Amino acid sequence: MVKIAVLGYGTVGSGVVEVIDRNHESINKRAGQDIEIKYVLDLRDFPGDPVENILVHDFDIILKDPEVKIIAEAMGGVEPAYTFTKSALLAGKSVCTSNKELVAAHGAELLEIAKEKKVNYLFEASVGGGIPIIRPLNSSLTADEITEITGILNGTTNYILTEMAEKGSAFDDVLKVAQDKGYAERNPEADVEGYDACRKIAILTSLVTGAQVDYQDIHTEGITKISDIDFKYAKELKASIKLLGMSKKVDGVFYSMVAPYMIGQNHPLIGVNGVFNGIFVHGNVLDDVMFYGRGAGKLPTASAVVSDIVDAVKHLNVNIMTIWERRKSSLGSFEECTNKFFVRMKDKGLDDDQMVTIKEAFGDVLYVKAPGVKDELAFITNPIKEEEFAEHLKKFDDVYSVIRVDF
Amino acid sequence: MVKIAVLGYGTVGSGVVEVIDRNHESINKRAGQDIEIKYVLDLRDFPGDPVENILVHDFDIILKDPEVKIIAEAMGGVEPAYTFTKSALLAGKSVCTSNKELVAAHGAELLEIAKEKKVNYLFEASVGGGIPIIRPLNSSLTADEITEITGILNGTTNYILTEMAEKGSAFDDVLKVAQDKGYAERNPEADVEGYDACRKIAILTSLVTGAQVDYQDIHTEGITKISDIDFKYAKELKASIKLLGMSKKVDGVFYSMVAPYMIGQNHPLIGVNGVFNGIFVHGNVLDDVMFYGRGAGKLPTASAVVSDIVDAVKHLNVNIMTIWERRKSSLGSFEECTNKFFVRMKDKGLDDDQMVTIKEAFGDVLYVKAPGVKDELAFITNPIKEEEFAEHLKKFDDVYSVIRVDF
Repeated sequence: MVKIAVLGYGTVGSGVVEVIDRNHESINKRAGQDIEIKYVLDLRDFPGDPVENILVHDFDIILKDPEVKIIAEAMGGVEPAYTFTKSALLAGKSVCTSNKELVAAHGAELLEIAKEKKVNYLFEASVGGGIPIIRPLNSSLTADEITEITGILNGTTNYILTEMAEKGSAFDDVLKVAQDKGYAERNPEADVEGYDACRKIAILTSLVTGAQVDYQDIHTEGITKISDIDFKYAKELKASIKLLGMSKKVDGVFYSMVAPYMIGQNHPLIGVNGVFNGIFVHGNVLDDVMFYGRGAGKLPTASAVVSDIVDAVKHLNVNIMTIWERRKSSLGSFEECTNKFFVRMKDKGLDDDQMVTIKEAFGDVLYVKAPGVKDELAFITNPIKEEEFAEHLKKFDDVYSVIRVDF
Repeated sequence: MVKIAVLGYGTVGSGVVEVIDRNHESINKRAGQDIEIKYVLDLRDFPGDPVENILVHDFDIILKDPEVKIIAEAMGGVEPAYTFTKSALLAGKSVCTSNKELVAAHGAELLEIAKEKKVNYLFEASVGGGIPIIRPLNSSLTADEITEITGILNGTTNYILTEMAEKGSAFDDVLKVAQDKGYAERNPEADVEGYDACRKIAILTSLVTGAQVDYQDIHTEGITKISDIDFKYAKELKASIKLLGMSKKVDGVFYSMVAPYMIGQNHPLIGVNGVFNGIFVHGNVLDDVMFYGRGAGKLPTASAVVSDIVDAVKHLNVNIMTIWERRKSSLGSFEECTNKFFVRMKDKGLDDDQMVTIKEAFGDVLYVKAPGVKDELAFITNPIKEEEFAEHLKKFDDVYSVIRVDF
């Protein structure tokens, strides 16, 4: 019998309780012993709820109970989760979490403490919800040098972009529907500005490089500027627009970025639609692999947390090696990244030498047209460094849209 | 330093040597110690090859060398691989293998011996080539009760079916090209008759149910009867035809089958084309996940074997729990499976009461037409038990084609 505690009885925390209750037979079998939830920590009371009798408001009760070997942290946010997690690990308890903010900010340090204390800090649920990606990176893709990891890492934005693609709707309209359906928060900033995807690609890149990638160092653009007109062009190009979190090794250096991309039919993530997430990995011997599934949601996320709990039970007093050192990973600078760009700007008419200026700036670009769209020029550049592109773009006013292109 | 031996210096075995050589730095880091290949076993000599000096012809040398802790078995076939593997495990050496025939036939027994001897029998490469699927099933999807696992598990047949879909070619023509390109064996029976996919779905189903699934008990159909005409209908239906290995739980009972299916645009495996493999898993809390990648090939398969070697190094003298007992899994009988069927038969003209007979046999079917195809009737039935379908089909002569439908 292993006793555990759940911190936070919100969406994920209550999901963890539900999953352990529902699948206890198979879970206990796979863990090799019975798992019992001894405490649930929450500031609120839940009268009449099954957890009523095991609910505590004071973390110290859990911390000081030597019977509690594993803690599922489902509070979210850096504090007090950081303080609780750190003290739990120092007290010799393993911690399993869905908290991407905390993992991105303090993962390396918490892993180091876990290693010293011969316990585990596990965070499968922090990226890709129910999709197994952290453990596969850590213990399956070990024969390879990973040269790229690119993901559709945020279900809310992917839902919005998919709806825009399929229905031709405008961003604001789809966002509103997404909010009404509960797929987007009332304050959608963390999702639509790419902050959530940024933390997730930071975690994945830390694991791939084995050293700390600070999310603040990753150039991040959201999807708020993507319009229905952009999708008309995408449709013409048989492409789609997806918010990608991407880390790619070029000449020995990793470049990371979060931004909307136009991707073509051959891109491994092209079929990842709606609230689904997909994570593509390229290894130097493995070639391409892709992991797909529900990137969010109560039960899928709880499933990932519980799989970590099972792993922690199987590794009581044994640290599972995770290579993520505190030294900083040396990422290439954003300005040096090379990308192709889709650009839309006002068509100044034949009297202007606009196309000459475009040619001078970007060389032979590919002009594209979309049915029903008038009075603008749209083109795709050849691969060009971010820095150079930005410099050249300054020559043009009335630029409507800039989207990176990967096909 | 951990010393290992590689059995068989064919495609996979030489790939293992190459991967360990090429990525030794990152592999040793992830394993936590240096890995050295002490022996390669093969009946042949390889003069001038880098392994020339470590080549042995007698397995006993490896078996009796206490320095060898891990063996990579890449011989294929049941014997002598079975005898070698069993004696290695009994001698306290871990074995990592790509040998699906052996795993399907004796996996449960070999796992039992490994457990007793506190070593490991690992077989990530036996299914899905480079795709991580065995380890995720074993250690990631542990919170769920898996209710379905369906895969495109054979790259050769998927390449053939993809070419037929894209080019409208006939089976025999595409097979010949595939053989010329080395994607299909000179004797393609194991692939095109579905035998390879059958062993793989047997292994996956054993892991999902935790008990032995004999591949001989799985109803298996290949793709040799699929014609270019079938693909004309598939195109009309915006569907594709894929060889699926499938295990699905219905009313508490697992049903397994290998057969070509027509699948629609919403099927998670619809985008798995060419030599790629994809494995779809449905869990009761996780919902849908899908794993995609190269299902075969020297380096991807070797990557999976080496990831097992790394895991074996990390677990010297510690058995990694794998639930696959020797007792037989009780599968539901094939006759009781329910499927929808696409049927093509000779059109006997208006003088015949054929459509009345069809209605009497299968109820209100959906008639379909394909451009340029004449003198035949094609329809899709409602879901019907295999047994009943087969019984009713006897009423019709001149049946051209029967393909199961999943949309």
